[in-house]
Amino acid sequence: MKAEIIAVGTELLLGQIVNTNAQYISKQLAEIGIDVYFQTVVGDNRERIQEALRMAQQRADVIVLTGGLGPTEDDLTRDAVAEFTGNTLAFDRAALQQLETYFHNRGMAMTENNRRQALFIEGADVLPNDAGLAIGSALQAGNTLYILLPGPPKELKPMFERYAKPWLLKHLGQEIRSLHSVMLKFAGIGESILADRLADLIDGQHDPTIAPYAQEGEVTIRVSTKASDPAEAERKMRPVLDEIKKRAGEHLYAETDIPLEQAIVEHFAQNGWTAAAAESCTGGLISEMITSVPGSSRVFAGGIVSYTNEIKHQWLGIPMSELEGQDAHGAVSRETAKLMAEQIRERMNCRFGVSITGVAGPSPSEGKPVGLVYIGISEQGKQTQVFEERFNGDRVLIRWRAAKRALYLLWKSSKNME
Amino acid sequence: MKAEIIAVGTELLLGQIVNTNAQYISKQLAEIGIDVYFQTVVGDNRERIQEALRMAQQRADVIVLTGGLGPTEDDLTRDAVAEFTGNTLAFDRAALQQLETYFHNRGMAMTENNRRQALFIEGADVLPNDAGLAIGSALQAGNTLYILLPGPPKELKPMFERYAKPWLLKHLGQEIRSLHSVMLKFAGIGESILADRLADLIDGQHDPTIAPYAQEGEVTIRVSTKASDPAEAERKMRPVLDEIKKRAGEHLYAETDIPLEQAIVEHFAQNGWTAAAAESCTGGLISEMITSVPGSSRVFAGGIVSYTNEIKHQWLGIPMSELEGQDAHGAVSRETAKLMAEQIRERMNCRFGVSITGVAGPSPSEGKPVGLVYIGISEQGKQTQVFEERFNGDRVLIRWRAAKRALYLLWKSSKNME
Repeated sequence: MKAEIIAVGTELLLGQIVNTNAQYISKQLAEIGIDVYFQTVVGDNRERIQEALRMAQQRADVIVLTGGLGPTEDDLTRDAVAEFTGNTLAFDRAALQQLETYFHNRGMAMTENNRRQALFIEGADVLPNDAGLAIGSALQAGNTLYILLPGPPKELKPMFERYAKPWLLKHLGQEIRSLHSVMLKFAGIGESILADRLADLIDGQHDPTIAPYAQEGEVTIRVSTKASDPAEAERKMRPVLDEIKKRAGEHLYAETDIPLEQAIVEHFAQNGWTAAAAESCTGGLISEMITSVPGSSRVFAGGIVSYTNEIKHQWLGIPMSELEGQDAHGAVSRETAKLMAEQIRERMNCRFGVSITGVAGPSPSEGKPVGLVYIGISEQGKQTQVFEERFNGDRVLIRWRAAKRALYLLWKSSKNME
Repeated sequence: MKAEIIAVGTELLLGQIVNTNAQYISKQLAEIGIDVYFQTVVGDNRERIQEALRMAQQRADVIVLTGGLGPTEDDLTRDAVAEFTGNTLAFDRAALQQLETYFHNRGMAMTENNRRQALFIEGADVLPNDAGLAIGSALQAGNTLYILLPGPPKELKPMFERYAKPWLLKHLGQEIRSLHSVMLKFAGIGESILADRLADLIDGQHDPTIAPYAQEGEVTIRVSTKASDPAEAERKMRPVLDEIKKRAGEHLYAETDIPLEQAIVEHFAQNGWTAAAAESCTGGLISEMITSVPGSSRVFAGGIVSYTNEIKHQWLGIPMSELEGQDAHGAVSRETAKLMAEQIRERMNCRFGVSITGVAGPSPSEGKPVGLVYIGISEQGKQTQVFEERFNGDRVLIRWRAAKRALYLLWKSSKNME
């Protein structure tokens, strides 16, 4: 069962908005076992919409169109699909009624243009719009199913879930066998090294499929199979999942699609542990990442951004003789990272303290190169660990990579103690 | 001049990630006067990539491909374009060297797979990757220009701006009458209210064009015209720019496309002012935004993330009687925000102190609703101001909106004193 998504809208081609609808629909279709092979974006132009329809009709069983159902002359999706499938347009009475009520309640006159939003493709099933005015259509023509949805995500989502998805399930019946996926999340290991460890599994894959992909600081391995129920999926995937874990389990931080910081918060919460952060070059990014997780207040006491030597001295008790002067190790040093981690832990009375000091750029600092970063991990009753790291990239990237690395080291330290 | 964007990646078709690259490239191309007619997404499949190339080659002068340049067998973009254009692949020596250095510095062995990232299409110009390992290619074949960029946005953006865009401008030469744009950046005003103030200008626009669009916490008005040189563009745009400034100048923070935090850092640096931040619900986001600006260490001393009442008390001297108990105003209150802003300013010895305390959600706190946020602005020798704000959205959005709002209020306060 193959699907194709056509998003209609010149604003997408101008880069004014991001095509989040394609992601949403793709995910929804994957969940009911329909594979999306192409996504296309086309402008508000009747010819080019039809060109996209011609291509899609040759290679897909289901075509989902988003956008172009509004009231203006620019909104051409209905017209293009009707012409392409050899149908005409008709007004839906209930939708016209809804429009009239809407404008009447607001004391506004309804313009003729607005009536266009009650048009559907004759012979199609109407998809009601519970969050807006433009209705959708669901249509079988030849062997192809067509679904027309409005562009605004707040209208599209309820229309898809309440009306389009049930319609699809009804029309595709037994042909759908659902796709089941497990996401294995890794940190502290690059995509290529991980892929290398799993090379024979990935090369020999057929069912289940194994797909690695990388985000900054994290790598995901998606293991997927089609199965009629979760138990069958589990039976098919278990040996592969176990083998992957055997080979790279020490970097595996979650078996569900969550970021590293969430795994840390959950792990700390389970154990009743707390943490605090002292940051220099990352400027608050570690604190920000951890506190982005709902419920992080149970495990995160707080942090300090010590952006000057005075603040490092005054707020974290780093001796000025350590920071400045000929014999000082400097703010960017193993010694300073160690003290920062220990001091923030003690002063915020936590089990763990994490620190970062380094050179994010664009220029070197204290004669130290851009990308050099020291990360300290202090744990109550244990020896403080300091890691020297070198990151590539611009200021934004170095900060991001340093923060993710610090989270990985914090996670690893907290795991090692088990 | 027509362009088409082909994003390669099964993770896009599965809806696991959003295709923000297509938006970014579309916007960049629009700025240099290249129209995007189609965007396509295709999976990691050699045949389907070639099918997309066949379509694109028939209708576009420029084809930009994103993704599929990584080290794994799944990364097929190079191979597909080489085969499609009848070229072979070759290793770029400099890129190989970079890979070897990278792995050597980390004390890791480079796997064979990794070498793939140094492959480019023979005859193409290499596009260096300043933020990662996989190089890009820029190639003319027949009448079509091909640009291959990596998928991760953090690698794609610098590669496009530093190498691919200049390459395009050089190869398209005189065919582009450059589009000249001025970006007016506004804060503290919503897009619809701003658009309303400028309604007659926007409706009546022809040349120059006036396009408003909103990012979270900022609104941009792009004024553009095609002209053969900057002086001609300036003559055509000046009257429109002046009129816009007359109508909404009090919200204008920059006449170039920079974020609000950069405008603040530059403004403070010019005046020799300093600032510090005390954050609760934003968890370090304000500090992180300010320190993301190169050179921010001249104006930003540091910040504290006080995520618990104990830390607010111990590190900022907020009386516990203010934070807890029946008569306390609570951590989320006008009074706490005021003290936080004053204390961080005094204790970090700065001209300005900014504070945030609120409820980011997902659950209410202290019986106060999700979205309620207090922002304090303290300035040396002046009365502290506290602003009560209510934000919609989920946890991520509320934190982001609160931080941007605080930056706007800080910027405005610092402007008012002039």
